[in-house]
Amino acid sequence: MESIISQSYEVHFGDLAKAALKQHIAKSDYSKVFVLVDENTKKYCLPFFKMEILDHPVNAVFEIESGENNKNIDTCVKVWELLSNEDGDRKSLLINLGGGVLTDLGGFVASTFKRGIDFINIPTTLLSIVDASVGGKTGVDLGVLKNQIGVINQPVMVLVFTEFLKTLEPRQLVSGYAEMLKHGLISDQEYWTQLKEGEKFTDSEHIQKSIAIKNKVVLEDPTEKGLRKILNFGHTLGHAIESYCLDNPEKKTLLHGEAIAVGMILEGYLSHELKGLSKLSLEEIKTTFLHHFERVDFTDEDIESILKLLKFDKKNTHGDINFVLLHSIGEAVSDVKVPEELFEKAFAYYKE
Amino acid sequence: MESIISQSYEVHFGDLAKAALKQHIAKSDYSKVFVLVDENTKKYCLPFFKMEILDHPVNAVFEIESGENNKNIDTCVKVWELLSNEDGDRKSLLINLGGGVLTDLGGFVASTFKRGIDFINIPTTLLSIVDASVGGKTGVDLGVLKNQIGVINQPVMVLVFTEFLKTLEPRQLVSGYAEMLKHGLISDQEYWTQLKEGEKFTDSEHIQKSIAIKNKVVLEDPTEKGLRKILNFGHTLGHAIESYCLDNPEKKTLLHGEAIAVGMILEGYLSHELKGLSKLSLEEIKTTFLHHFERVDFTDEDIESILKLLKFDKKNTHGDINFVLLHSIGEAVSDVKVPEELFEKAFAYYKE
Repeated sequence: MESIISQSYEVHFGDLAKAALKQHIAKSDYSKVFVLVDENTKKYCLPFFKMEILDHPVNAVFEIESGENNKNIDTCVKVWELLSNEDGDRKSLLINLGGGVLTDLGGFVASTFKRGIDFINIPTTLLSIVDASVGGKTGVDLGVLKNQIGVINQPVMVLVFTEFLKTLEPRQLVSGYAEMLKHGLISDQEYWTQLKEGEKFTDSEHIQKSIAIKNKVVLEDPTEKGLRKILNFGHTLGHAIESYCLDNPEKKTLLHGEAIAVGMILEGYLSHELKGLSKLSLEEIKTTFLHHFERVDFTDEDIESILKLLKFDKKNTHGDINFVLLHSIGEAVSDVKVPEELFEKAFAYYKE
Repeated sequence: MESIISQSYEVHFGDLAKAALKQHIAKSDYSKVFVLVDENTKKYCLPFFKMEILDHPVNAVFEIESGENNKNIDTCVKVWELLSNEDGDRKSLLINLGGGVLTDLGGFVASTFKRGIDFINIPTTLLSIVDASVGGKTGVDLGVLKNQIGVINQPVMVLVFTEFLKTLEPRQLVSGYAEMLKHGLISDQEYWTQLKEGEKFTDSEHIQKSIAIKNKVVLEDPTEKGLRKILNFGHTLGHAIESYCLDNPEKKTLLHGEAIAVGMILEGYLSHELKGLSKLSLEEIKTTFLHHFERVDFTDEDIESILKLLKFDKKNTHGDINFVLLHSIGEAVSDVKVPEELFEKAFAYYKE
């Protein structure tokens, strides 16, 4: 499949990815090659990676625990110490083999170890392939606040192997599908229409299309001053919902895609109320997401707590809450202020 | 005094600094202005800063404990949490008011909070004015390993007020003097000769000369691939000595300048043995530093431990130890490999 040229790095697929990795390591004078895994990718992805992909010795494999609750500074300290103990130096390479939690954390660890060493991301979940693999955001959470600590820094390259998708449970695949649908909603009606039938969203062509959409947006606005904000559609309420459920032992923890699927219905409602998204399109969005994602129960207390969390969202400068909304399917608008009374109406619409 | 244009930022002095700060804040749309201090700068510098320099309200003052042993990730977590608790957002400004430990740590905290907010450095010690104020290095220690975690990132501006030097003890002033002497040794014989009499090294013209020398080197090589390495003269052994004394309860803790003063005598000896530095210049270097810095006692065990620490120095890629040495006073050469047997001879020369 054709490679995608991102900012200072490239996204390669399959055999081309394997060749690009080999060529890059051959021409680089790395002192050490390290691989970061979690208990899942150690078991399901590392053997294939070592046998079929990486044609080079590995100096050490570092293992962290999977899960958003481990995406924190304590885990970073452990990996920094492992890097130090293995005599990692400025010419070392870190290969991040895992989902978004691992590539976000591994990218941050590499970007800050000895003021920055090279890293390569090999996303192993659909969500991380279509979302985290492009954009250069690295970081970890601070308490319940997601991605509070991090830097913008680019990997040397991103390598996509769809073989890894076979190791995922259906629920995790569908979580990535939510981000792919988002790419259609914010910039490509035709792609949305193709995807929403949901039959073969793991096809390489769809995956590549999603990466290409995200890449185009990021290239035009690497530091998130303008256009890039549209990638946050569904995420303002979605993040708050995700954080709330993660932190509340009585609620079922939602995968990222499951939370933003709710967020996209809610923000679709706001789009209809404020930005002219048609009733028909709104219903199409709601029907599509509720077809693929089980409806989540929210009590009045849940909703109150979620709205409180909103003001901590990292994108809210000056205390205002800015939303990305849709004029129509395929056309997004950012920096929309939303009157507070609409939030509860949006949840009511979701529950209907 | 004339301002110095550094990489993407400017170094201003005195009244010009005050005006530049006022103008910058007026044109920037900061949501919040925070000031980071330690217990010393809170007492001796903050009142003057608020009354005489900053013409703008401060949203919160964050206090950390002074000292290299607090330059770690735990302190960063505290400041990140304070920033979060005070509703710091992406449009917040952090002003770092303190010595090198504080500006290194504050720069790292700002560079990584919400993937980077603006920061301004106001160095308050001679050492941080002539050394840390230019170069864009930020970071903290990991255990005994200095500056293991950090990023290269530039402050919005650096402001120098020599009034703050009056708050320093003589020992701290002399520590900064060691870095100024280094600037002469690596690139300007005339400046070295002026400075080594040691009468008025805190004069503004000398301070500005030192910053200008460092700035010139950094501008030519921001990412430390070549020329910038010469700034490490005296630091390869100096850092190891500093770390060893800090970590060993039986040794007196050395200030940074005190440690590199020893390092410059030792590396001066290596320069004489390997790179043709004349015996006369070597004696001049030794006499100068021992005139201003008390001779440190090193036992054979001390020396053995210090040499073990050397291999952990962050600049040693591929396990080799690279030194910056002098051809002559004012002319440095980097990437020199040194035979191990010379290290003990260098210490013997220092003790003579």
